[in-house]
Amino acid sequence: MSQNLFQLAQSGSQSSLGRRSGIATFVNAPLSEDLKDVDVGIVGVPFDGGMTSTPGTAEGPREVRNQCVRRSINTYNTALKVNPFERHRIYDCGDVVVSRFSVAEASDAITNAVSALLNKNILPVCVGGNHFVTYPILKAIFKKHGPVGVLHFDAHTDLLDHYFEEKYMNATMYRRGFEEGFILPGKFIQAGIRRLYGEDEINYAFEQNIRLISTAELKQMGTEGFKRELEVLKGIKLYVTFDIDFVDPAFAPGTGGPEPGGVTSFETLELIRCLQGLDIVGLDLVEVCPALDNNGITSLLAAHILFEMLSVLPGND
Amino acid sequence: MSQNLFQLAQSGSQSSLGRRSGIATFVNAPLSEDLKDVDVGIVGVPFDGGMTSTPGTAEGPREVRNQCVRRSINTYNTALKVNPFERHRIYDCGDVVVSRFSVAEASDAITNAVSALLNKNILPVCVGGNHFVTYPILKAIFKKHGPVGVLHFDAHTDLLDHYFEEKYMNATMYRRGFEEGFILPGKFIQAGIRRLYGEDEINYAFEQNIRLISTAELKQMGTEGFKRELEVLKGIKLYVTFDIDFVDPAFAPGTGGPEPGGVTSFETLELIRCLQGLDIVGLDLVEVCPALDNNGITSLLAAHILFEMLSVLPGND
Amino acid sequence: MSQNLFQLAQSGSQSSLGRRSGIATFVNAPLSEDLKDVDVGIVGVPFDGGMTSTPGTAEGPREVRNQCVRRSINTYNTALKVNPFERHRIYDCGDVVVSRFSVAEASDAITNAVSALLNKNILPVCVGGNHFVTYPILKAIFKKHGPVGVLHFDAHTDLLDHYFEEKYMNATMYRRGFEEGFILPGKFIQAGIRRLYGEDEINYAFEQNIRLISTAELKQMGTEGFKRELEVLKGIKLYVTFDIDFVDPAFAPGTGGPEPGGVTSFETLELIRCLQGLDIVGLDLVEVCPALDNNGITSLLAAHILFEMLSVLPGND
Amino acid sequence: MSQNLFQLAQSGSQSSLGRRSGIATFVNAPLSEDLKDVDVGIVGVPFDGGMTSTPGTAEGPREVRNQCVRRSINTYNTALKVNPFERHRIYDCGDVVVSRFSVAEASDAITNAVSALLNKNILPVCVGGNHFVTYPILKAIFKKHGPVGVLHFDAHTDLLDHYFEEKYMNATMYRRGFEEGFILPGKFIQAGIRRLYGEDEINYAFEQNIRLISTAELKQMGTEGFKRELEVLKGIKLYVTFDIDFVDPAFAPGTGGPEPGGVTSFETLELIRCLQGLDIVGLDLVEVCPALDNNGITSLLAAHILFEMLSVLPGND
Amino acid sequence: MSQNLFQLAQSGSQSSLGRRSGIATFVNAPLSEDLKDVDVGIVGVPFDGGMTSTPGTAEGPREVRNQCVRRSINTYNTALKVNPFERHRIYDCGDVVVSRFSVAEASDAITNAVSALLNKNILPVCVGGNHFVTYPILKAIFKKHGPVGVLHFDAHTDLLDHYFEEKYMNATMYRRGFEEGFILPGKFIQAGIRRLYGEDEINYAFEQNIRLISTAELKQMGTEGFKRELEVLKGIKLYVTFDIDFVDPAFAPGTGGPEPGGVTSFETLELIRCLQGLDIVGLDLVEVCPALDNNGITSLLAAHILFEMLSVLPGND
Amino acid sequence: MSQNLFQLAQSGSQSSLGRRSGIATFVNAPLSEDLKDVDVGIVGVPFDGGMTSTPGTAEGPREVRNQCVRRSINTYNTALKVNPFERHRIYDCGDVVVSRFSVAEASDAITNAVSALLNKNILPVCVGGNHFVTYPILKAIFKKHGPVGVLHFDAHTDLLDHYFEEKYMNATMYRRGFEEGFILPGKFIQAGIRRLYGEDEINYAFEQNIRLISTAELKQMGTEGFKRELEVLKGIKLYVTFDIDFVDPAFAPGTGGPEPGGVTSFETLELIRCLQGLDIVGLDLVEVCPALDNNGITSLLAAHILFEMLSVLPGND
Repeated sequence: MSQNLFQLAQSGSQSSLGRRSGIATFVNAPLSEDLKDVDVGIVGVPFDGGMTSTPGTAEGPREVRNQCVRRSINTYNTALKVNPFERHRIYDCGDVVVSRFSVAEASDAITNAVSALLNKNILPVCVGGNHFVTYPILKAIFKKHGPVGVLHFDAHTDLLDHYFEEKYMNATMYRRGFEEGFILPGKFIQAGIRRLYGEDEINYAFEQNIRLISTAELKQMGTEGFKRELEVLKGIKLYVTFDIDFVDPAFAPGTGGPEPGGVTSFETLELIRCLQGLDIVGLDLVEVCPALDNNGITSLLAAHILFEMLSVLPGND
Repeated sequence: MSQNLFQLAQSGSQSSLGRRSGIATFVNAPLSEDLKDVDVGIVGVPFDGGMTSTPGTAEGPREVRNQCVRRSINTYNTALKVNPFERHRIYDCGDVVVSRFSVAEASDAITNAVSALLNKNILPVCVGGNHFVTYPILKAIFKKHGPVGVLHFDAHTDLLDHYFEEKYMNATMYRRGFEEGFILPGKFIQAGIRRLYGEDEINYAFEQNIRLISTAELKQMGTEGFKRELEVLKGIKLYVTFDIDFVDPAFAPGTGGPEPGGVTSFETLELIRCLQGLDIVGLDLVEVCPALDNNGITSLLAAHILFEMLSVLPGND
Repeated sequence: MSQNLFQLAQSGSQSSLGRRSGIATFVNAPLSEDLKDVDVGIVGVPFDGGMTSTPGTAEGPREVRNQCVRRSINTYNTALKVNPFERHRIYDCGDVVVSRFSVAEASDAITNAVSALLNKNILPVCVGGNHFVTYPILKAIFKKHGPVGVLHFDAHTDLLDHYFEEKYMNATMYRRGFEEGFILPGKFIQAGIRRLYGEDEINYAFEQNIRLISTAELKQMGTEGFKRELEVLKGIKLYVTFDIDFVDPAFAPGTGGPEPGGVTSFETLELIRCLQGLDIVGLDLVEVCPALDNNGITSLLAAHILFEMLSVLPGND
Repeated sequence: MSQNLFQLAQSGSQSSLGRRSGIATFVNAPLSEDLKDVDVGIVGVPFDGGMTSTPGTAEGPREVRNQCVRRSINTYNTALKVNPFERHRIYDCGDVVVSRFSVAEASDAITNAVSALLNKNILPVCVGGNHFVTYPILKAIFKKHGPVGVLHFDAHTDLLDHYFEEKYMNATMYRRGFEEGFILPGKFIQAGIRRLYGEDEINYAFEQNIRLISTAELKQMGTEGFKRELEVLKGIKLYVTFDIDFVDPAFAPGTGGPEPGGVTSFETLELIRCLQGLDIVGLDLVEVCPALDNNGITSLLAAHILFEMLSVLPGND
Repeated sequence: MSQNLFQLAQSGSQSSLGRRSGIATFVNAPLSEDLKDVDVGIVGVPFDGGMTSTPGTAEGPREVRNQCVRRSINTYNTALKVNPFERHRIYDCGDVVVSRFSVAEASDAITNAVSALLNKNILPVCVGGNHFVTYPILKAIFKKHGPVGVLHFDAHTDLLDHYFEEKYMNATMYRRGFEEGFILPGKFIQAGIRRLYGEDEINYAFEQNIRLISTAELKQMGTEGFKRELEVLKGIKLYVTFDIDFVDPAFAPGTGGPEPGGVTSFETLELIRCLQGLDIVGLDLVEVCPALDNNGITSLLAAHILFEMLSVLPGND
Repeated sequence: MSQNLFQLAQSGSQSSLGRRSGIATFVNAPLSEDLKDVDVGIVGVPFDGGMTSTPGTAEGPREVRNQCVRRSINTYNTALKVNPFERHRIYDCGDVVVSRFSVAEASDAITNAVSALLNKNILPVCVGGNHFVTYPILKAIFKKHGPVGVLHFDAHTDLLDHYFEEKYMNATMYRRGFEEGFILPGKFIQAGIRRLYGEDEINYAFEQNIRLISTAELKQMGTEGFKRELEVLKGIKLYVTFDIDFVDPAFAPGTGGPEPGGVTSFETLELIRCLQGLDIVGLDLVEVCPALDNNGITSLLAAHILFEMLSVLPGND
């Protein structure tokens, strides 16, 4: 009875109308305490250790949730004519409990938590945290699915071998991912790259047969060209990872390593819609740093990107 | 004599040079207390009742005026090679006195105030306030001119039938406008739409023969295509209404319902210039919410949009 | 099992150590869906209709919760040597579902929701919303307990008879409360008053035997003097209402009617600690307006005030 | 008739109730175009040339006006039980027209403008601009009244002989004022001083018999002690000048030369109230720099200080 | 030995990896005290006198340096595949010592300082300050090289004859430059123009054979068209001046005269890369106003533009 | 010669006059590359690993330097009538090079760097970074001087035994310091404490004979009482450590663990002045977190605190 008087998390039709109150959850999804009857589980991964840049991304999950209530997020995808909440039982499953002191311990905790989702056949959607978290997530994906294709939106390749002697951090985790066999050869696309640290990265990408699409190239090819690039990822299990610095700092200033010269929010949303039809088995959205943001616009954009990603998840239809 | 020593509102050539002092008025126009010898009357409509989103748009008129002095607004339209202040006697006529407590009373007050302008053959330019204010303005326009065409820039259709049982608020006012016959059938264009709440809106728009142009479509057609769309509005009396959330939040964060994925400020100004030659009988600019803005950039952009709109008003030439 | 991996709301000892993640709730208390086994129920009242000032206080509950996670709130009261979470079973019960369109409907909804708590012997702690919400809360308190004493922290008396002809809004609600018999005669203290609108208020306060303590008087009397003032409220049921504009705008800028010349945060917390031993039957904290805040410091202070208030609630010992 | 529909500047009883709309003027006073029937004329002096610190104080008048509407300013002085608008006909007379390029020309323009007010027996209240403006104002005061006493609230003495060889700028203008005989010997009090550039200033102050009260001394003496200090200024014509950096940066961050360790807003307002009974012939409020402010709190405080100052002006009673 | 323990300015490979600490210098270049062995000398020109708009650009050099450390700037140009630090010995040479009180003295000081660089065959890269500084820099360039071509990125032409009777300020300096013969006839391109103050400017540009490219034209021609425009500047000594208001305010809000409707950061960086192969003998970047910025994004973009400009400087290869 | 034209770091008399340009250094002191002829060496310690709260304090040194130029810092101490730059040769020695990945490695690097200063008889003044850095600094102090007294300004005791199993982090480092014998028994004063995590801390403080002064006690005793408390620290070597959260968040919002209810900036500066006459052998200022600040006011206050601390260092006189 009290449900009629009090509101916890928003859900269903009312959130689409923007009531803007109640407990803050990702895309205003209901909370799940027991992971039962969940198709898609959104979890926060509040980890920002082992950083090359201004920390603070551990607060990303908190602020993305906060903006979902503050501004309201739609439930109907206007462009794709899809209501993801009707297609999947989507829940906010809380935050992964991670150590603030040990990268190794945090890494294991993340792998275990994502495995717990996968073992219940829940598709994991992770909100970082810094980009390092993709490494332990991919490890859990690998345990469940074996090697997968990867589609990576980012301004940086994160393909360094090491960084000031450190091998496990947020600019090297893909190199580790390759070495450990998490990624299917020839099935790795990086889109939006506009800052390399030298020619080594290009050479490594060439050796590993990684498709590296620069921001300039991406803008020129448009959605039609991008869809053609994605052809190679069809029919395989795919992991999608989205670093918010893919987008230009005018649209997403709240991130540790902003790179002017990125795509717009319009282009970003259009590109994500191109993912419809791919066999996505997990995804993440990382590097939102609320302390560096201008009045929440980055977290708001992140919430919209999250909604678009939920809209292209494969359904049972 | 004191005029040489003291400056009240800016006007004429000096404001174009950016003195940036004196009393703040819309586009630095002189104040009118008696509505005499006024061709175009800009009025604030500080109403934000009946909201679906964060209120605060009642402060829009204040802050748009403030930015006009703070940053200075040109008097010469570089793109159109027009000085609107030479073509029309443009005045700031103050704010409509509206109730904060009753939507119905506020609505009547707005209709009466706009009628007062129209009765003196003053073209009304209204700065909101939330989008509900378009309803009472249209009512005044209807009383004077009968049904008119409407050109609507917005991210949302505002065509809902009701909202949590409410029939008169800022997401339903066009539905009311149609029902009450304010709008000429087949003469309603909505541009920039990118968030629907479900298929009902599309169906209603279809039934009413509304031309609904999405942001994506708008970007693709460009100014040439947009001009072709506007052909249908030629030769009829036209009302223009501009919701600032038409523009992407990177350019206009200060609004209650920001929708990432909008057009740029460049595109916005270019699109407004396409209105030259239409028989505009009134216009508004709404949903600027200063409390949510980043350092005034939304109100500054609103002031520029206002200036462009003044530049395309039909002259007597 | 998933509890070990995932974190929903924080609670118990860990939140005192500032893990700073998980679902945002008031003072990091656990969520209650069914109101069972709850001693103290904190609820948000996201209502900001009928305003005299900048709206936006409907977002107060959201942002106070947000800052509780962002900055962490203690569980141990250092000054009072009390852990309120050990003394009471404290829960966040979500937000009251209120209309955005009708003050009367919203008022009834609030009264009903608070009555639902009281009927389960839950002590209601309400986070506004604007100060009008105290009126429907007091009505529920009155239904349960009959007339009560009121201790009111505020820069304003809110004792106007009407405001632009409106009788039920956030500057008149105490006048209504008196007229309707909610308040025990001679048991109303207003502390921190520093802005009157004229001599009428003083006269009315005199007639009603209200003890009106100005900010200057309060600073001069200190905590010892304030405790003496509170003697008159001992042994009766007491309602406490706290308007954040009681505090100086340097400490609490995020409010609609800031009045320079208030007390400091240190003085505020000390004054609240003086309430220990009173028979508090309900309390509220209102007028936090996040959109006007500087980086959340007002909501953070509000969360600390809330914690101090929870620390002085009467226990069963 | 249109007055009932439209609102220009606020005035009278309604502004005290916070309508918060209409044209922005100082303390919501009506505008005067012709200086007729004006007792007290508030003028902006948008000059920030010849600066030692971050410029931008030329925007002070604009933003102080803006905050008067944004937040509303009372008309009734609660502490002093005075309504200054009933005692004086107070008008906003616009901004002095000043050169941006020549300190000398700007200085003359300011002297001329203030003289124009004085010649009509209007008491000048000037809102800067930087502190240099006090020099040309004092010159006009001197022309009208001869040498006067000066009460100066500031963190700095502004008594340097020169600054990087410059003799007329905002850290030297009092030295010039003394040399030119504007100030009555022994009738100069400086309150709040907490930053000297060396012992020269102390020596000069000693030679000129200036009473220099440090912030620490001021806090210790309290309002009673301060009133005793003011005894020496009784019975003479007095000019009052208030540099906003007198107040601590937590309360007034928006200024070019903030000095931590100042008084609070409460102390500030109390100290100004001590001026009641002095024969004030002019006053100014300077160094508000909106671009450095946090969400307008400095300009809001300045508006409140202005209101307190208007409340202590000598009446005809 | 202490170098291993302590870090002053960053340089070489480590800065490219973003250590983000040490003394702040332009593009993290080492400091030069004696101007020895310097190929390219970056200097700050902290001058903002003679302004038409909000001052504060004197703080541009400070904040651009600050963002270089805060966010880190690359050393490898990904798009051009060039490491400018390997091609040139680039140093930060500190700030030009300029008067705050005299435009004429400041102008001479700037000319002398730039001449000191040129006399040591150091290519001067100047960071303003307002746009007036280009005038004294061009004078020094003229002394060394005779008349040069000029490529000018800006929203305004800065070609006014005078401004409120002032002849030497930041809206007139090119007119002076022409009159004094600093610029090669027919070799002046202005790109990005979108605000004229009237037809006089167009006429003057036409008379002087200036190529004036509007923002709209620039967007339409793209990089290919722009390269064709630049053909006329090949083979001559060229000066490049970049006003940050060339870029749209969403990307660069921190400037005194923001003009909505500009190019994006992506377009800006692409256009600068077109300068490769030109015989640049000096360049500047002006009008960054940190006090008006949103969290440093303008200064960060300015630092990136600076890096791109350093990447297209002619080498000895 | 170029020195006359260009300015690197500010120093000597000119900085006291606020030129506000040149390379940013702590209190505008000259840079030292070789540690020669240095009496007092200010170093940044950009470490924020092992945090309990929002990271970002690694940027503290950068922003404190930045504000020293932005706002200017005095060279003459008005209250104490001392010019510290005349009493000591004060230099900015850059930042300690610390690992971002290993607390242990960073700890050793800090100890080594401080030892390098001490071995040259340079008094170390360290600007953090988070409070953990006090541990490795104390270790270096201990190596040089043996056990010392400690005066600790903070809202928290930092005396926990462990935190989530971690033993070396910023809430436990004093416990470690005691265990390792760095601190003289009975010579440890903690001032400003207002948040304990439970009674354990009080018990531990009691056992260790630590003098724990709460904020309330401190305010009550005033400077006279505080001087009496300091008597016990006379005649011994003393280390002073200052956590910026000692100050109330209204004055210092930019810190990871803000605790409302602290002292004012006025009280803070007065308390530091009480340290005159103590035998200080090292000091630090920690926990400034620029990303959480409001327009730099925390870093500005930190710079002023630093200046006051330099003013009480023991001289050779």
